[in-house]
Amino acid sequence: MLALAAHNMGLIPWVLSTSPDDPAAQVTKWWIKGDPNNPKDLSRFLKNVDVLTVESEFLDAAVLERVCKNNKVKIFPSANLLFLLQDKLSQKIILRKSNLPTLPFIDIQHASHLDFAVKLFGLPLVLKKRRFGYDGYGIFILKSSRDLNSILKSLDFKNSPCIAEPWFKFKRELAVTIARSKKGQIRILPLVETKQKNSICHWVKGPVKSKFFNKMVKPICRFLKKIDYVGAISFEFFETKKELVINELAPRVHNSAHYSIDALTTSQFDYHLKAIIGHDLPVSKTIQPAFGTVNLLGSGKKNSQLANSPDTFLHWYGKSIKRKGRKMGHVNSLGDTPAQALAKARQAEKEFSK
Amino acid sequence: MLALAAHNMGLIPWVLSTSPDDPAAQVTKWWIKGDPNNPKDLSRFLKNVDVLTVESEFLDAAVLERVCKNNKVKIFPSANLLFLLQDKLSQKIILRKSNLPTLPFIDIQHASHLDFAVKLFGLPLVLKKRRFGYDGYGIFILKSSRDLNSILKSLDFKNSPCIAEPWFKFKRELAVTIARSKKGQIRILPLVETKQKNSICHWVKGPVKSKFFNKMVKPICRFLKKIDYVGAISFEFFETKKELVINELAPRVHNSAHYSIDALTTSQFDYHLKAIIGHDLPVSKTIQPAFGTVNLLGSGKKNSQLANSPDTFLHWYGKSIKRKGRKMGHVNSLGDTPAQALAKARQAEKEFSK
Repeated sequence: MLALAAHNMGLIPWVLSTSPDDPAAQVTKWWIKGDPNNPKDLSRFLKNVDVLTVESEFLDAAVLERVCKNNKVKIFPSANLLFLLQDKLSQKIILRKSNLPTLPFIDIQHASHLDFAVKLFGLPLVLKKRRFGYDGYGIFILKSSRDLNSILKSLDFKNSPCIAEPWFKFKRELAVTIARSKKGQIRILPLVETKQKNSICHWVKGPVKSKFFNKMVKPICRFLKKIDYVGAISFEFFETKKELVINELAPRVHNSAHYSIDALTTSQFDYHLKAIIGHDLPVSKTIQPAFGTVNLLGSGKKNSQLANSPDTFLHWYGKSIKRKGRKMGHVNSLGDTPAQALAKARQAEKEFSK
Repeated sequence: MLALAAHNMGLIPWVLSTSPDDPAAQVTKWWIKGDPNNPKDLSRFLKNVDVLTVESEFLDAAVLERVCKNNKVKIFPSANLLFLLQDKLSQKIILRKSNLPTLPFIDIQHASHLDFAVKLFGLPLVLKKRRFGYDGYGIFILKSSRDLNSILKSLDFKNSPCIAEPWFKFKRELAVTIARSKKGQIRILPLVETKQKNSICHWVKGPVKSKFFNKMVKPICRFLKKIDYVGAISFEFFETKKELVINELAPRVHNSAHYSIDALTTSQFDYHLKAIIGHDLPVSKTIQPAFGTVNLLGSGKKNSQLANSPDTFLHWYGKSIKRKGRKMGHVNSLGDTPAQALAKARQAEKEFSK
């Protein structure tokens, strides 16, 4: 989707990835086969580009930093920020230092640390790998001492350091994507509610309101300025009756803002690209009052009737391997209220799950 | 742009063209090298696709019809309509038969026919090749007997049959793009004013009003129903103080509606694709009150600052060969009035022409 937005903006999207079947490889002639974590491949790739950005947290930030520097290619967000934010521990620390509310946590580097976490937080306990967690991978909800024993057997904390958090009962999960330009312009996309299914985002609807979020906007903007963030960044929140806490953030375009392709006059992909190439950021408007997104998960079949309604829009990622719970595409929908818009996308989803 | 819209709609755009440097070949993995006019190449290509559409009038409609039929692939607009409409003579006849106003014309198959046209219409006289005219190619404005002599020397009417039309003094040139679905739904995009420079479209602005056009909407819709047109079609008009006449029509997405990518909630490319795959056609809305487009012609240089304003949008075609007057890309712009929007795009154009 980033590559399509780039084409549509008169930019040339070069893509470095391991397989010609990768989604981004399918939509640009300027695809280069290679592993972004391999300095040689990355260096060869960077000969072609003016600015680099990444769409994944699975990359080695140290390699990115060094190879970009050697090739005199700018990378946004900066490799240093990627390094700090792709690790859930340093992400938590940086949020804490910035006085942004997040759940308490314990750094787990040894089995005894887990015991300590249980004593402090009780059960259920949420255990997260510090790196490479994604769509439920690397997240464990420990409900019983049996769960604890089994995780101790399967996980080696030395090689897979984790953090532990208390189980948190929330009323809603919310998310927001924000773009910040090189010059420091900030654009805040609409706040949305998200629903997870086995830790994978199932649907999104918006815009929604939250008085707690309204109060957090200024601190978040200060935070982005402090770390000099450039590009799109997404915050995921837990909301209770009393408060809003940041669950985590993602230093990139984000699934919870995919609605923006059809619902806003400037999508998150447009914003991210404009930010990293140093353009001014437009003020985005909603095209209809409300919107929804349903992720198409797993092994359903695409068919062209899937989103045959003037207010629903199919996006298909062209992933070659289907897997239970894998995001294969999504349907965006527009309407008068978030609930009504979402209902349209869920209707389309039925067609997919047939 | 059609391929990008297809990707964005969850469709897989297969492209048949002669060079990997062709604009559409740059944005899809599913490119096949071949000549669409070569039945073997076309047949090989059609094994992959569910529905075929064309973006050019330079194709042999008879080949399209036969090879599509053999491969059981639907083509929209139909090959028969392409055959009729890509020939300026039969296009004129079909418009006439449908009582749509167009300039008088004379079929030129012999030098003596040209003499007759001069007697009837006087000078200047407009001579147009019946087929393969494009961006000023194949259009000759004959102002003097010297021009007449030189055209008689250079053109062989047997191999290049032409039509002649009187020189027509108009106040404005207008254009409209209309989409019609398989079910007969019709969506009319905003009416625009266009400005040509050496017979090549230089700029477009809209929406504009014309009382003559308002009266012509119904006859045009009847016409599209009668010929069962499916897809996007564009009409170009000459307007005087007294009337509106159809200059010509193009059975495809059209340069005069490129504004629709950024100015409307549904672009002409979206409409064309939805029409040919049998989807319902949404009602498109303008995102800001007015819009403009400037074509980037010739050998200027693209740079990323070219459209660095929240209201201007660069589209770059990635054509490998520059040529004087060739459309290399365009800038869309939005604003409160057509004139104001256009001024923004013209500002961006200065950056290109530097």
